[in-house]
Amino acid sequence: MTIAAAITELAGVFGDRLVRSGSDLELHGRSESYFPLTPPDAVVYPESTEEVSRLAAICNAQGCPVVAWGTGTSLEGHSLAVRGGVCVDFSRMARLLEVHQADMDAVVQPGMTREALNRELRATGLFFPVDPGANAALGGMAATRASGTTTVRYGSMADNVLGLQVVLADGRVIRTGTRARKSAAGYDLTRLFVGSEGTLGLITELTLRLHGQPEAISAAVCAFDRIGDAVDTVIATVQSGIPVARIEFVDAATAAAVNAYAGMEFPLKPHLLVEFHGSPQGVAEDAERFGELVTDMGGEGFRWSARAEDRSALWTMRHNAYYAILASRKGARAVVTDLCVPISRLAEAVEETRADIEDSGIPGPILGHVGDGNFHAVLLIEDGAAEELEVAKALSHRMVERALRLGGTVTGEHGVGLGKLGYMEAEHGAAWQVMGAMKRALDPGDILNPGKLVPPEA
Amino acid sequence: MTIAAAITELAGVFGDRLVRSGSDLELHGRSESYFPLTPPDAVVYPESTEEVSRLAAICNAQGCPVVAWGTGTSLEGHSLAVRGGVCVDFSRMARLLEVHQADMDAVVQPGMTREALNRELRATGLFFPVDPGANAALGGMAATRASGTTTVRYGSMADNVLGLQVVLADGRVIRTGTRARKSAAGYDLTRLFVGSEGTLGLITELTLRLHGQPEAISAAVCAFDRIGDAVDTVIATVQSGIPVARIEFVDAATAAAVNAYAGMEFPLKPHLLVEFHGSPQGVAEDAERFGELVTDMGGEGFRWSARAEDRSALWTMRHNAYYAILASRKGARAVVTDLCVPISRLAEAVEETRADIEDSGIPGPILGHVGDGNFHAVLLIEDGAAEELEVAKALSHRMVERALRLGGTVTGEHGVGLGKLGYMEAEHGAAWQVMGAMKRALDPGDILNPGKLVPPEA
Repeated sequence: MTIAAAITELAGVFGDRLVRSGSDLELHGRSESYFPLTPPDAVVYPESTEEVSRLAAICNAQGCPVVAWGTGTSLEGHSLAVRGGVCVDFSRMARLLEVHQADMDAVVQPGMTREALNRELRATGLFFPVDPGANAALGGMAATRASGTTTVRYGSMADNVLGLQVVLADGRVIRTGTRARKSAAGYDLTRLFVGSEGTLGLITELTLRLHGQPEAISAAVCAFDRIGDAVDTVIATVQSGIPVARIEFVDAATAAAVNAYAGMEFPLKPHLLVEFHGSPQGVAEDAERFGELVTDMGGEGFRWSARAEDRSALWTMRHNAYYAILASRKGARAVVTDLCVPISRLAEAVEETRADIEDSGIPGPILGHVGDGNFHAVLLIEDGAAEELEVAKALSHRMVERALRLGGTVTGEHGVGLGKLGYMEAEHGAAWQVMGAMKRALDPGDILNPGKLVPPEA
Repeated sequence: MTIAAAITELAGVFGDRLVRSGSDLELHGRSESYFPLTPPDAVVYPESTEEVSRLAAICNAQGCPVVAWGTGTSLEGHSLAVRGGVCVDFSRMARLLEVHQADMDAVVQPGMTREALNRELRATGLFFPVDPGANAALGGMAATRASGTTTVRYGSMADNVLGLQVVLADGRVIRTGTRARKSAAGYDLTRLFVGSEGTLGLITELTLRLHGQPEAISAAVCAFDRIGDAVDTVIATVQSGIPVARIEFVDAATAAAVNAYAGMEFPLKPHLLVEFHGSPQGVAEDAERFGELVTDMGGEGFRWSARAEDRSALWTMRHNAYYAILASRKGARAVVTDLCVPISRLAEAVEETRADIEDSGIPGPILGHVGDGNFHAVLLIEDGAAEELEVAKALSHRMVERALRLGGTVTGEHGVGLGKLGYMEAEHGAAWQVMGAMKRALDPGDILNPGKLVPPEA
C-alpha cells in the first residue's frame, strides 16, 4: 500500500502517458499565486473515462493520492499535491462530444477550455457564458464552481452544468443529472460535485447549458466620486430589473494602472463598466435607463456604445486589468483575494478594505463583479520579500474576517484550495463536519485531493 | 427503542402541541392524489428550531420515524408516514423573519406559504417568483425542489434558495449558505438539502432570493394546428433569447375542459399561453417578436395585452385548468403525471403520450411548462374503479419509460415521494447508491422520512 506501488502499476497501464520527468512534475507543482512548488510523484495523461476509472481503482487499492489538473489556472492552490501521489492531467480529454442545438446544451470532456468551446460553438448561434477571466478547463471550472463577469446575468457553473459523468474514488463511474432542464428526482448530485474541488470524484464528462448569442450588445462606462455612489448605482440597477450582462467595478488605483499599461485616460476615480445583451432596441433602452440611474447617483462621463470595437477596447481593458496591475509594480508578485458579501454591505466592505490597504503601505487595487457583491484586491508584493508577503496575508486575513462579519462568504469564486482552508470552520460551523461526513461516505480511503476542503480526520 | 417511548417523551416536551386525535392523524395521513390513507402515530406542532432539535434528538435516540409536513399539497405522497412515527407540522413556524430590501432576499420559517410571503412583500417592490400552482409551504417547496410556470425565467427552488437552517437527524442545527449571492466555499449543502424530501434533515429556516416586481407585464395566447408547431414555437422563442416569464402549453382536451368550466371559447386546438415581464417598451417589443414567431409557425388567434384584467383572466384559466379538468368528468379522481425531457424531444413525448391516452379510453388532458420541457397529463379515473386506476398507472409507467428513453427525467417538479420511487434506479443507475451513501452518512438511524428516496438498505 504505497504511492510507489501505485505508480508501478499505473505505468503498466499508461506506458509513456505516465510521466515522472522533473520538468513535468515541476509544471504540475506550480500555482498561479504565492504557494510554494509542490510537485506530485507522477503525472498521468488519461484518454478515456475507462482509463480514469482504472487509475482510481489502482490508487484506491494502494492508498495513493489523486489530484485532478485542468489548466493550472487556480489561484488558491487547489491542484497542488500536498501529500504527493498522482496528478491526473486531463489535457488529452479535451473534446467537444456533442452539441444539441435545439436543446441549447453541449457535452464536453473536462480538459476542454472555455475559449475552445466557444470557438467551436461560433457558427451555432450559441455560447457558453461563464467567464472567470483565465482560459480555464471546463472540468476545473466545474470543480471549483467558477463564475466571473457574466454571472450576474447567466449564473455561475452551479447554474450552467446540467449533468456530469464522474469517476468515484473506487473506480465506479456514475452519471448525475440528465439533459432535461430541471428534475426533482432525488439528491442534486450534480451540484454536490460542482465545487467539490476534486475531493469527491473525478469529473470525466460535463453536460453544459448554452445560451443564445445576443443579437445586439451595448456597453457603457462611467466614473463616480465615491465608491458608495458606484455601489448604490449597482443596487438600483439590479433592483429596477435592468438585465445587465456584466457590471464590473474598478477602483481609482485600477484605473491608474490601466491608464499606465494601455495608454488610456480614465479619470482617477471609481468606475463601473457595464454590458447589456438583447435586441438592438432592448440594449439601447437598457443603456438609457442605466444612464439615468448613473446621472441620479452623480456619476459622470457616462457614454455607451453598441460598436464592437468600443466594447472590445473596454473589455480588453477589464480583462487586462490584472496584468496592468501587476505591471504597475516592477517585478512584483500578487496575492489575489476574493470575497463576496450581500450587496448592501459591499460599499462598506470595499471602503474598509481600501482604507486598510492604504494603511499597509503595499499597493492593492480593488476590482470586482459587483452585481454579485464579489470583489478582489490584488496585493502587490516584492518577489521574495517575506515581510511583504506577511503584510499581504494579514490584509487578506482581515478581509476574510470582514466578509464573515458582514454576512458574506470567504470566497465568492476562487474556491477554497489551500488559501481558504483555514476559514472553513469559521464560515460553516457545524456544517463543515457535515461536509466531512459526505467526503468519508464517498472517499473512505481519502485518496481524492487529500488535505483539502474538509476537516482533517481526528 | 420504540415509537411509543418516543411519543411519551415528546408529550412531556410539547404538551398539547402533540396531538393524537383521530381527525388530526387522518388529516396528516392524506395525500392530494391516489395514495391510500397513511396516518402517523402522532402530530407535533413545534414553535422554534430548538424544539425541532429536541424532537429530532428524542426520535433519533428512540429510532422513531420523523416526517415533515407543510401544507400537504404534494402530489406524490412525500409526507405519508409509511413506517408510522411522528409527523412534524410546521404550521406554527410560518413567520417572515427578515426582509433585506437592498439585497433582495428574505428569511422565512418553513411553514410560511408562498402566497403569504408575497402578500407581505407587496409594498417592497419585490416578490418571490416560484409558483407551483398550489399555495404550498416554502419549506415543503424547498424540500421537493418545486418549480412551476415561472421557472423558465426565474428558476426553480434550487435557484432561489440562498441558504438554510437545518436540524439534522441527531438534533444538531446547521446553517448552509450565506446571504452573499454566490460562494465557492465548499460543498453546496444548500442544494443538497433542496430536493432531499425530508430524508437528510428538517428545514427550519430559509433564506430566499427575491426579484423586483416587473414594471410592466404583458401576456399573450395563441392556437396551433399541431402540437409540434406549438413546441417548435417554444424552441424558437427560447433560442432567440426572448425573455419569456411564463410559456405554458395546454392541449385541445384542456382547452375543451376550460371552455366548459369557465364559459370560455378557446378553439379546440393546442395553445400556448405566454407572459413577458419588463419595462413597458420591453414587454411590447417582446410580445411583438413572439407574435412574429407564432405567425412563422402557422399559429393563429395571436393577441397580446398589457391590461391587468386580461392577464388575470388568462392565468386564472391556467391555474384553474386542473379543476376544470377534474370537473370535466363527474366524481373523478386524478392521477397526475409529471415528466421533463430535453425540449427537442418534447413534441415527440407529448404526441406519443397523447396517442397512448386516446388508446387507453380514459380521459387525460395534457398541459405543462414547455419552456422547461416539463409536462403533465391529468388522468381522470372513476373514484374506486380499480381497473381504471390500473390503466392510469400503466399509462403513467409508459410515460416514465418514454421520458427516460428520450433523455429526460422521471419527475420534473413533483418529486419522488412514493409515486416515483420505483424508477430511481432506472434513472440514476449507480448514482442512486451514492444517494444512499449520503443518506447513511447523515441519518445512520434512518429516522428521517424512512422508506423514501434512497435505496432500501440491504
